[in-house]
Amino acid sequence: MNDEGEGLGSEAVGGFTRRRFIEGLSRVGGMGLVMAGMDAFGVGIASAQATPPALTGSGSGRKVLILGAGLAGMTAAYELQKAGYQVQVLEARDFAGGRCQTARAGFSLTELGGARQDCRYDKGQYFNHGPWRIPHHHHSVLHYTKLFGVPLEVFVNDNEAAYVYAETGKGPLAGKRIRRAEIAADIRGYASEMLAKVVNQGALDAEFTKEDRDAFITYLRGEGYLSASDLRYVGTSDRGYMVPPGAGSESGKVSPPFAFKDVLHSKMWRSLSSVATYSHQGTMFQAVGGMDQIAKGFERQVGRYVRYGAVVDKIAQNETGVEVFYTDAAGKKASARADYCLCTIPLSVLRTIDLAVSPRFKQAMTGVAYMPVGKVGLQMKNRFWETNHSIYGGIVETDIPDLGSIAVPSTGYQSAKGVLLGYYQFNASAAKISAKTPAERAAFAVEMGSRVFPEYRDAFESAFSVAWHRVKYNLGGWAAWSADGRKNDYPVLCEPDGRIYLAGEHLSYLGAWQAGAIESAWQQIGKIHSRAQA
Amino acid sequence: MNDEGEGLGSEAVGGFTRRRFIEGLSRVGGMGLVMAGMDAFGVGIASAQATPPALTGSGSGRKVLILGAGLAGMTAAYELQKAGYQVQVLEARDFAGGRCQTARAGFSLTELGGARQDCRYDKGQYFNHGPWRIPHHHHSVLHYTKLFGVPLEVFVNDNEAAYVYAETGKGPLAGKRIRRAEIAADIRGYASEMLAKVVNQGALDAEFTKEDRDAFITYLRGEGYLSASDLRYVGTSDRGYMVPPGAGSESGKVSPPFAFKDVLHSKMWRSLSSVATYSHQGTMFQAVGGMDQIAKGFERQVGRYVRYGAVVDKIAQNETGVEVFYTDAAGKKASARADYCLCTIPLSVLRTIDLAVSPRFKQAMTGVAYMPVGKVGLQMKNRFWETNHSIYGGIVETDIPDLGSIAVPSTGYQSAKGVLLGYYQFNASAAKISAKTPAERAAFAVEMGSRVFPEYRDAFESAFSVAWHRVKYNLGGWAAWSADGRKNDYPVLCEPDGRIYLAGEHLSYLGAWQAGAIESAWQQIGKIHSRAQA
Repeated sequence: MNDEGEGLGSEAVGGFTRRRFIEGLSRVGGMGLVMAGMDAFGVGIASAQATPPALTGSGSGRKVLILGAGLAGMTAAYELQKAGYQVQVLEARDFAGGRCQTARAGFSLTELGGARQDCRYDKGQYFNHGPWRIPHHHHSVLHYTKLFGVPLEVFVNDNEAAYVYAETGKGPLAGKRIRRAEIAADIRGYASEMLAKVVNQGALDAEFTKEDRDAFITYLRGEGYLSASDLRYVGTSDRGYMVPPGAGSESGKVSPPFAFKDVLHSKMWRSLSSVATYSHQGTMFQAVGGMDQIAKGFERQVGRYVRYGAVVDKIAQNETGVEVFYTDAAGKKASARADYCLCTIPLSVLRTIDLAVSPRFKQAMTGVAYMPVGKVGLQMKNRFWETNHSIYGGIVETDIPDLGSIAVPSTGYQSAKGVLLGYYQFNASAAKISAKTPAERAAFAVEMGSRVFPEYRDAFESAFSVAWHRVKYNLGGWAAWSADGRKNDYPVLCEPDGRIYLAGEHLSYLGAWQAGAIESAWQQIGKIHSRAQA
Repeated sequence: MNDEGEGLGSEAVGGFTRRRFIEGLSRVGGMGLVMAGMDAFGVGIASAQATPPALTGSGSGRKVLILGAGLAGMTAAYELQKAGYQVQVLEARDFAGGRCQTARAGFSLTELGGARQDCRYDKGQYFNHGPWRIPHHHHSVLHYTKLFGVPLEVFVNDNEAAYVYAETGKGPLAGKRIRRAEIAADIRGYASEMLAKVVNQGALDAEFTKEDRDAFITYLRGEGYLSASDLRYVGTSDRGYMVPPGAGSESGKVSPPFAFKDVLHSKMWRSLSSVATYSHQGTMFQAVGGMDQIAKGFERQVGRYVRYGAVVDKIAQNETGVEVFYTDAAGKKASARADYCLCTIPLSVLRTIDLAVSPRFKQAMTGVAYMPVGKVGLQMKNRFWETNHSIYGGIVETDIPDLGSIAVPSTGYQSAKGVLLGYYQFNASAAKISAKTPAERAAFAVEMGSRVFPEYRDAFESAFSVAWHRVKYNLGGWAAWSADGRKNDYPVLCEPDGRIYLAGEHLSYLGAWQAGAIESAWQQIGKIHSRAQA
């Protein structure tokens, strides 16, 4: 057993890629054979690419110039230098990590046309204003956290004790904070009751044998907590207690279910689905001490290749190589040459740089929008969400205009203070709120959040907000491809233009995720290596 | 905001207990008023007793003799000494904690009539063979972990990526390992499709307005991933991918759903319910470094009152006090006197001790069975469940005879080794497997577990098992009250017999849980204190 083998790479099946292998099985023998094949791999849901490409041979004597010391750029630098390439990384900021940032005391940010924010959290408090969670199936990220010894802890994404808060519903539950378990148990319980009723009345007898029906009713009884006698949903202790069981005579008092129509018209079921979204399906992780520990893990390996404060002005190329002109940290003009360039600069920014590529390539670069994204981290002087509400980590879904969701921290449980995510907005909401000053954004978050947690007003101490579309060197949260853009422009950008290769989350189907950045880098360095070896 | 106020105690509402307050609201104004009242408390699911009783006045000059240094005994010792009482604790073992134990190198156990087991795990590896998880609503446990500074980490109980393995089902899925998300998405998807179909056909029109029907169909579409056009379930990416999305052209290949009847007759839905069991509902915790850190947190506070190795032989009382006769660690007979005795010895053991209580009390002590419980911790030389299967923490449900469930560790992610729970049995299965030698139990667990994870055979290194019904001073996992026993005998034991009070999980409706032990102690010391103050 090889501890590094989080899954089998594309080399694993005698030259077949995993995809071709599985598709082949599917054609030959249907799903039964596919399952057997996936079992043979020992995996069911491994990444398309779970480990870096094997760069066999040596890159010695070749130089790759990498633009951007985010996760894509540092991945490329790490793997290429390991394979013998000379690498150099130009990074506009004075720190590595790209969007993989954590705000803590000492961190500052000045958005375009905005005031400077100096993070004033207490020592030990922090906020992941960039990427904040890693699903268990993002093997590429987990490959490096393991390799570089970055400790992980569980990120609580789904929490049945967290509130749902819907103002736009109707009836007695509108504008009330209700625990997710209560809504889920009730709507699913009533639905199970209805289905059991019609099945029992024979509505589906054309499709069901008696054996089918009996098994299905047994399923519905368990799933929906139906009474054995009359298959009715009358609530369940699993939705919670008014008075929980305790010592002595306290046997507990189960909270009664809400009425079906009250739940139905509350619209609180909007966030329910039979399983969690794949990208957010547990177990999820975060880096202990802040997500920037992942960036720092990379930086320990490749920081020596990075020139910080180097702002790229122009990217030129000819048949023999590339030359990149930049302004260095002291304001001096400089340039660097290499055989190939791997450019991880977001397209939103790259569009503003003098770039020697074909008109078609340039046009393709305009085919994608970048997502306006806003986040605010609110330091609270106590953890009222834990002490008063028993919510330990997790996301409170709201439909409060322009607020989105609130998330309480999955770390520092039972400690004195904490930083919660006060809003998480996209698109128009993000654009709108980002026009406010940092102080106004914080006031908005506190004002709106206190509809769910009145404790906000007393507990709020300090805020740090980001509007990624206003952050220099990013100009957006992530690439948001339209269907047309994905079809027409994306494939153009996935291939090199001359000696210039692009990489980053924007060149993946894992957009916005760190895994997309890493796997894109893996793919492109594989191409560079094949070409260099040819 | 008081950080200690995890909830409001019974003092909070002018002499009303929480229960009386909420029940009053319910009588007066129905559920609407109850919800408002619960909101006024700032809590929806707090414990009946979330904080220790306020022992106002002083216990000075009174002595309480506590039998057993488990969580109930140490809770009582801590609170009573704080209130000025003289306390003494007699503990049969040479360590504190009762069932709150963790096996690691240096820990040994000799079961009744069994071989001695010396735990041979590697340094840093451990296994919680007693209590292993804490739900977020067990405020009494969380009160002390916070007070005593015992760090907590998330215990992953529900993991949609974990396998379900059913041998007793029928059809192509029987004996296959299937991820929980696949089963949940498919059975709920097909059920949603059926219900949407009959609702659309008007089967429930007597109960539904058009507005109801539209809202309900919208719910079913989201819940069950139904196609917008024809309300059919045709699978979802959230059940997983054959080839996951990646970089470049890899858009991913969603795994197709299983056929409805295959899922139905697989019986793999047996472990599904619309929400998780209340006692196991997230967020759940464990103590960092092993659950015995909770015991050690208490011991740091009250260890100085504990006489270790003191095995109680006889408990006597008269109108003026109690006297307890015991054999000390050196084998010498000794006795201790006090005004009151709080006895936390499990009834299974107490029944064998000479005890001066009424015949009715004695008879009541026989009214409860103690649960045979078996657990084994298997140290594996690599974490194949993570690297090969992407299962990070969580429980693999099986119907393998006498095996029960397998649980992989919620700590040490991505490290070299790990200890997994190889079986967790109750009742007849526990009795049967406990008859084996420790080596045979380990061989059984490895043999059976390898049906799910073939890697077991290569990776297994070292085992430590416990059969709680064979452990001296416990003679069972926990008290398993029958309905009759709960009705007739339990109330007798909740009240004192003369100056002897009982406490422990067995005197709570939180049987088997640490919270039951603590809250029972809280309740009984409240009674002792009232009497002593009278």
